[in-house]
Amino acid sequence: MITLASDFGSPYPAAMKGVLLGRTDARLVDVAHDFPRQNVRAAAFWLREVLTYFPAAVHLAVVDPGVGTERAALAIRAGDHALVAPDNGLALPAARALAGEEAGVEVFDVAYADRDTESTTFHGRDVFAPAAADVHEAGVDSFERLDRISPADEFVDLRFPDPDRDGAVAVGEVLVVDGFGNVVTNVPGEFLADRESVIVNGEPAPVARAYAERAAGERLVTVGSHGNVELAVNRGRGEEAFGLSAGERVRVER
Amino acid sequence: MITLASDFGSPYPAAMKGVLLGRTDARLVDVAHDFPRQNVRAAAFWLREVLTYFPAAVHLAVVDPGVGTERAALAIRAGDHALVAPDNGLALPAARALAGEEAGVEVFDVAYADRDTESTTFHGRDVFAPAAADVHEAGVDSFERLDRISPADEFVDLRFPDPDRDGAVAVGEVLVVDGFGNVVTNVPGEFLADRESVIVNGEPAPVARAYAERAAGERLVTVGSHGNVELAVNRGRGEEAFGLSAGERVRVER
Amino acid sequence: MITLASDFGSPYPAAMKGVLLGRTDARLVDVAHDFPRQNVRAAAFWLREVLTYFPAAVHLAVVDPGVGTERAALAIRAGDHALVAPDNGLALPAARALAGEEAGVEVFDVAYADRDTESTTFHGRDVFAPAAADVHEAGVDSFERLDRISPADEFVDLRFPDPDRDGAVAVGEVLVVDGFGNVVTNVPGEFLADRESVIVNGEPAPVARAYAERAAGERLVTVGSHGNVELAVNRGRGEEAFGLSAGERVRVER
Repeated sequence: MITLASDFGSPYPAAMKGVLLGRTDARLVDVAHDFPRQNVRAAAFWLREVLTYFPAAVHLAVVDPGVGTERAALAIRAGDHALVAPDNGLALPAARALAGEEAGVEVFDVAYADRDTESTTFHGRDVFAPAAADVHEAGVDSFERLDRISPADEFVDLRFPDPDRDGAVAVGEVLVVDGFGNVVTNVPGEFLADRESVIVNGEPAPVARAYAERAAGERLVTVGSHGNVELAVNRGRGEEAFGLSAGERVRVER
Repeated sequence: MITLASDFGSPYPAAMKGVLLGRTDARLVDVAHDFPRQNVRAAAFWLREVLTYFPAAVHLAVVDPGVGTERAALAIRAGDHALVAPDNGLALPAARALAGEEAGVEVFDVAYADRDTESTTFHGRDVFAPAAADVHEAGVDSFERLDRISPADEFVDLRFPDPDRDGAVAVGEVLVVDGFGNVVTNVPGEFLADRESVIVNGEPAPVARAYAERAAGERLVTVGSHGNVELAVNRGRGEEAFGLSAGERVRVER
Repeated sequence: MITLASDFGSPYPAAMKGVLLGRTDARLVDVAHDFPRQNVRAAAFWLREVLTYFPAAVHLAVVDPGVGTERAALAIRAGDHALVAPDNGLALPAARALAGEEAGVEVFDVAYADRDTESTTFHGRDVFAPAAADVHEAGVDSFERLDRISPADEFVDLRFPDPDRDGAVAVGEVLVVDGFGNVVTNVPGEFLADRESVIVNGEPAPVARAYAERAAGERLVTVGSHGNVELAVNRGRGEEAFGLSAGERVRVER
């Protein structure tokens, strides 16, 4: 099984699928191709959230503002999963989540197959898809035996910060806003335990277990499906009601 | 085969796919994940229109404004198909169409597997995807033998109204507007038989067999692919030209 | 393997998949269903760019402003690929690219199976999907033995023009703008060879090998993944910075 994720929109991902299917009979599963354009951080968050629900697979992920530069290509082993992605941090949070422990993540460089025939603008098709097919065919346990694979001396990492906690106050950040307009923060859901309301950036807001516990159009704070504090509006858009977007600071007081 | 349909946008459906593929090797087929947000009625219409073209399958459908409330989860047998969906009417029109007769629809409750580990905001991933995989593995003919399945005493139904007919006048409603801007009504296509034009909400409009029978930008009334009267504009948007949106009343005079 | 491409948006492609899966166990691969609406020329460009990366397959492609008219349905053999599409030029550029030579393209008419039961508005579902399944099951080498297939006496062709070249000046056109806002021209990439900058419609612009060679927000001219001259902005939209959209004239001076 190979999953595919990118910010390519359409129809570029189909070229990646064609390349993969010329090299493997693996099942292909689309994760998303509409990640926020060239936003490595948002894509890294979503990959960490979604890939952990998959059985063992090779995960091809490309959000790649540095395409065509000297930026390396990586293959990462994480438990019984492998990830193939540009060296910009994109795959590291998902790799740690899939491995379940820091030590379970092994990072390899993927040598380019042929700089002369590869485009400088579409490595998803010309570099990462062939590499993902090769990793899949070699097997997650043994892909490092491929000639083009070697241990990475260094690589770009990316970590989502923990919020600052001080007693009844957590100061964190908005990681992403999802398609429903729900504001996903980095504050752990436990912070809401036993509370009927909290104060978000100075304004009180009720805590709810389900969106529909509030009337349509009303604000609420809940534990989202990722386990973090989420700011939402029942049948509305939390980002508008709370006036928050990705990267902004959020202060929650119990 | 398991089909997937939701209003989740992206990337949430991928988490459902991961859960499914951890439990079954079934072919997965996306129906749509961009149904109008939390609009059970529009999604129910599209499911009825589309699922009837599939061979025997399990259909996982989630448009679920009541997620996290006491709202039940249903598994429905409809001929050689099964549907797994929240108890809000979503799957009933499709189930009747797939069964071909009212009596062919059997509705079951799906007990939640584990309220403690399930989120309250993403039952597509935590409740419906596992249930759909279980139904698929048990088989459409015998899934009621699963411990967590029991006959439903009651359930939420949803029916699309017939238009009021009085001789040469039909008063119906707009069921949905499709992505092309075509206005889909509940007036049966036969109503247009042998007519060269009709009067729609007081304004005459020509009847056409094909969009391209009219010049680009011109209004027309046709029998859509669903068999109903459809209000369209060749290479344009019928919703704008006819000033109609979903749920609105439409009066057609032969 | 059957690939699917259309301008249908959602959920209409799912009805095509249902029809296909009722007739074949082939792997289905989505190419795109968001081609610019009823824009045969843009879709023909993308098909040519993407389908050539696939191994042998049947390609079902439907962008069909003439649906329901006397417009014929075509099945085309192109090397070890087949294409099934309306007779409006849509599949011809891809067919020539897949065959690798003009002589390798054979064009057949597909007789309609049953004009009485087919809709006049959704031939993707009622005409092209059944035909693609039939072609797949018969095999690319021998589908012309099907009763409903006969050599086409004539068909609508579509070719993308070469630019006018006069020494250091190429006058071409914008073929499409992609989802990133990159402006794809018909000027071959070689035209940029060894240049550090060129003049585009009277304004100088730097030539770059990779988007990220320029600062964020800056214009650049590069060889796109299709091999043609592309006008772009690093982390921005080339269409806005260059003021160009599909079909417009572009003059590039070395």
